[in-house]
Amino acid sequence: MFTPATADQRFVLDHIVGIGELAESERFAAASSDVVDAVLDGVGQLAEGEWAPLNRAGDTVGAKWTPEGVVMPDGFVKAYHDYVEGGWGTIGVAEEFGGQGLPFAIQTAVLDTLGGANMSFALAPTLTVGAIEALAHHGSPEQQALYLPHLATGEWTGTMNLTEPQAGSDVGALRSSAKPLGDGKWSIKGTKIFISFGDHDMAPNIVHLVLARTPDAPAGTKGISLFLVPKYRLNADGTPGDFNDVRVVSIEHKMGLHGSPTCVLSFGDNDDCIGELIGGEFGGIRAMFTMMNNARLNVGLQGVQIAERATQTAVGYARERIQSARAGSTSRESVAIIEHPDVRRMLLRMKAQTQAARALVYLAAAQVDRAALGEAGAQDRLEILTPLAKAHGTDIGCEVTSLGIQVHGGMGYIEETGAAQLFREARITPIYEGTNGIQAADLVGRKLGLANGAVFAQLIADMRAEAEDQGLITLIDTCEEIGRGLMTLDADDKLAASYPFLTMLSTAVCGWLMERQGRIAATSDGDPAFLAMKTAAARFYVAQIVPEAMGLKAAATAKADVLYSIPAETFAA
Amino acid sequence: MFTPATADQRFVLDHIVGIGELAESERFAAASSDVVDAVLDGVGQLAEGEWAPLNRAGDTVGAKWTPEGVVMPDGFVKAYHDYVEGGWGTIGVAEEFGGQGLPFAIQTAVLDTLGGANMSFALAPTLTVGAIEALAHHGSPEQQALYLPHLATGEWTGTMNLTEPQAGSDVGALRSSAKPLGDGKWSIKGTKIFISFGDHDMAPNIVHLVLARTPDAPAGTKGISLFLVPKYRLNADGTPGDFNDVRVVSIEHKMGLHGSPTCVLSFGDNDDCIGELIGGEFGGIRAMFTMMNNARLNVGLQGVQIAERATQTAVGYARERIQSARAGSTSRESVAIIEHPDVRRMLLRMKAQTQAARALVYLAAAQVDRAALGEAGAQDRLEILTPLAKAHGTDIGCEVTSLGIQVHGGMGYIEETGAAQLFREARITPIYEGTNGIQAADLVGRKLGLANGAVFAQLIADMRAEAEDQGLITLIDTCEEIGRGLMTLDADDKLAASYPFLTMLSTAVCGWLMERQGRIAATSDGDPAFLAMKTAAARFYVAQIVPEAMGLKAAATAKADVLYSIPAETFAA
Repeated sequence: MFTPATADQRFVLDHIVGIGELAESERFAAASSDVVDAVLDGVGQLAEGEWAPLNRAGDTVGAKWTPEGVVMPDGFVKAYHDYVEGGWGTIGVAEEFGGQGLPFAIQTAVLDTLGGANMSFALAPTLTVGAIEALAHHGSPEQQALYLPHLATGEWTGTMNLTEPQAGSDVGALRSSAKPLGDGKWSIKGTKIFISFGDHDMAPNIVHLVLARTPDAPAGTKGISLFLVPKYRLNADGTPGDFNDVRVVSIEHKMGLHGSPTCVLSFGDNDDCIGELIGGEFGGIRAMFTMMNNARLNVGLQGVQIAERATQTAVGYARERIQSARAGSTSRESVAIIEHPDVRRMLLRMKAQTQAARALVYLAAAQVDRAALGEAGAQDRLEILTPLAKAHGTDIGCEVTSLGIQVHGGMGYIEETGAAQLFREARITPIYEGTNGIQAADLVGRKLGLANGAVFAQLIADMRAEAEDQGLITLIDTCEEIGRGLMTLDADDKLAASYPFLTMLSTAVCGWLMERQGRIAATSDGDPAFLAMKTAAARFYVAQIVPEAMGLKAAATAKADVLYSIPAETFAA
Repeated sequence: MFTPATADQRFVLDHIVGIGELAESERFAAASSDVVDAVLDGVGQLAEGEWAPLNRAGDTVGAKWTPEGVVMPDGFVKAYHDYVEGGWGTIGVAEEFGGQGLPFAIQTAVLDTLGGANMSFALAPTLTVGAIEALAHHGSPEQQALYLPHLATGEWTGTMNLTEPQAGSDVGALRSSAKPLGDGKWSIKGTKIFISFGDHDMAPNIVHLVLARTPDAPAGTKGISLFLVPKYRLNADGTPGDFNDVRVVSIEHKMGLHGSPTCVLSFGDNDDCIGELIGGEFGGIRAMFTMMNNARLNVGLQGVQIAERATQTAVGYARERIQSARAGSTSRESVAIIEHPDVRRMLLRMKAQTQAARALVYLAAAQVDRAALGEAGAQDRLEILTPLAKAHGTDIGCEVTSLGIQVHGGMGYIEETGAAQLFREARITPIYEGTNGIQAADLVGRKLGLANGAVFAQLIADMRAEAEDQGLITLIDTCEEIGRGLMTLDADDKLAASYPFLTMLSTAVCGWLMERQGRIAATSDGDPAFLAMKTAAARFYVAQIVPEAMGLKAAATAKADVLYSIPAETFAA
């Protein structure tokens, strides 16, 4: 039903992340080869044995709102508890905060496996990671001491409270308020929407990180501060005590991801919701970006998760479903549909895209670790890769789950095969944590121009230095040319071209990483079946998917004028 | 909420279908310009006023199975009755069978509008059309006299019963049986699955067309015969009488299209199900193709329908949703999101793709009429366009509904906006009536080689003669080169390349038709808003979507070897 992609994860950790090199540092010395294997295998057992079997109930039963709070489907509380007990939440958290201090890239692999088993469920730990990051970077020592150990284990979960009905992509439009009570306490009031795991029954406390406005704050993003608002206030001994006036008003009726309650939260209905500042007043946006940047990688990773699951499901079905003789064959015997060329094309494309997305997201994750080690250029590389990992990883998740339905034929449209659930769930990922359009805007508006274009130039140079396939080299050259041109354009033209350019550049990066993996696989010792599949997937990616991206050149160099040649009022004509 | 795309339909009827030319024939003399406008407006009123408001209940309430049969949601029975009363079912049916004898292209426009309002509902008339075609071409005079007048009005509905659990794409594997009872009657026995509108409460009778095997029939498709099996047998006066032992066992739990009951039908549980042959024994496949060919166009049309609805929904939302100031603007005022370049890009792409799909499907529909008039080459043109219309029309439906969700941002994932419903519903269309992979196989396996390639060559020549844009000409030339090459390949290589090639050729045809429309719009009198939008959509299509298809050249010329470089057994590695 679900098999953790341990072999591919390990291969990518070795050859894309450079986990061996990371483990040579003092900081990540614990990430020895044995430990890495033990982590991948251990979380794989939890995911396969306990999380994956709950995936369907997450969808069909789903999280339920009750007046006492949100109730998870049967089995989730125990499965979450076993995750906490196994120490899987602590993998990437610094030792000083109660974690194991392993690389972020290893934590990425852990979430990859958990989310492959059950994407909606894995969102709970994913969000907790965001809260940990924000507190680790911006919290006071007291806050860190009180909250981080409980968040690190996952005993308590974390949430991110940004969105309000009028403030979605435009977070600066938010209206939730914080009034000073003295003693560093603030009275929080406001309604937040789209809060994933905003409430549930798996943890004795939930730590809400809430963006709000202090009195007389300037308008827009500059006037926003971040507050720590626990569901239950802490007693003197640090245990959860009184209810903190955070009510879950309702949960959304979504197309999928029913295992993840998407909450409307009301803070301070009874004027009794108390929060503390995280970082300084008006430091909210900075803290939010700390939280969101890793969250963006983790959402890109959701694309990998759901693509992996969809590919496995489709391969399994295609091997068992017998239908029609093979065209051109002398035998008139019906064969498993995996034998038909177009079905194989879909399956190999699914494999290739899934592996490519994994390589892209893990490469970005590795930069988090390399930046932590102070490696020159790593932070910059992380900055430019983040929108690619988020947007392209999730686009691939959507494409692969759609192919997964197609491989199933009519059965793909019937809910019982599970292919439909994956397709429905994937579709949220290009939207949340900054829509993919926002990622594209970030790429052309901020990231291309970092260090006057030197960060982009270095990425291009690194790809070009290694690329061998002529089609891949052409794509890299074209991305360079288009990227340089984009920097000189005005906002409208830049943005009109942003999404096609993001896809081109992401494909170039994936092509670079897939070609490298194919080269290594061809001369590696190891499981011959895995290496043969890697070789085929790499070959397919470079030969067939890389050239596709060149087809976007016209769109990535088009100007905005055609878009504005009709006024908004007559757009429906 | 839904506005019939009357202006675009009329434009396409005029400039792609050549409705004026058709109306010059004796056969279609009734299709005068006034009549065309009256039909488009009239069905538009029914669709907008009565069918569109039921679309949401079709999804949320859905058709329900009961022991007495399938019950439609409130309002459907009346809305269907008004469709019958309005005479909308009779549009394309020959006058000798009680119809109005208008061109198939006009019927296409009628279904376009009805399905845009309510795609799942419009499947009922769509299937009835298939039954009418089969009876009109292959039925006996008695069968035609008894059944066609009731089917023509839609008073009775029709179904197509092909699929069995072990016989999906491989229809030749079916096992339902027919035993002769004498007097031209046959005892039918078997279970059929995936029968759209296999049962419902909107009509006093349902005419099932059932593929089954007669005793000692040869294996495979050659041994299949088509039977007419009414739900209620006809009395001597032709009215529905005794129940004919056709039970609806269950309906499927699908990802969408809940307004269309997908039935498991059991024929002859009590050995009391009586059918009649349609056409000769073993003539089932031929009759089925008559039924399916037009059905394929009508499913391609569903792509147009759902894309139209999704585009309207997204444009409406994007005009109302206020979020963020426009980048690069001096004003910091938030604007409607339709003002942001990447949102506009999505919306214009949706418009362009929807219009392109409409032009492609209507062009194919026009060939049905031209073939009926005996126009040289029309039947051949229809043959080669059918897989393109079905597959590419539905691929566009999926793409456009996905973009529709993205334009809505987080709200797109919440069911209440309706964007999610459209996305879920579109996803069936690349699967049924022959998966799009089957369409691609049909294109490269049968259609390219028609008349030794002359049919394909003529299509290429016609496009080249009119195309002006260099990018479009390049695509046409490339399609020609690839198509010629494909004809010489073995089955595996041909099929491995089939889907990318189908997309390329479809895009070339769409580019040809969109360029033509843009050229005409630039010099036409008419609604300036419509003409400006058509011009922009055409410009966008030719400049940005046509070049994308060139990116598929590598895949369309790749061989199958990479697909078979790993054995099926290790594909999951």
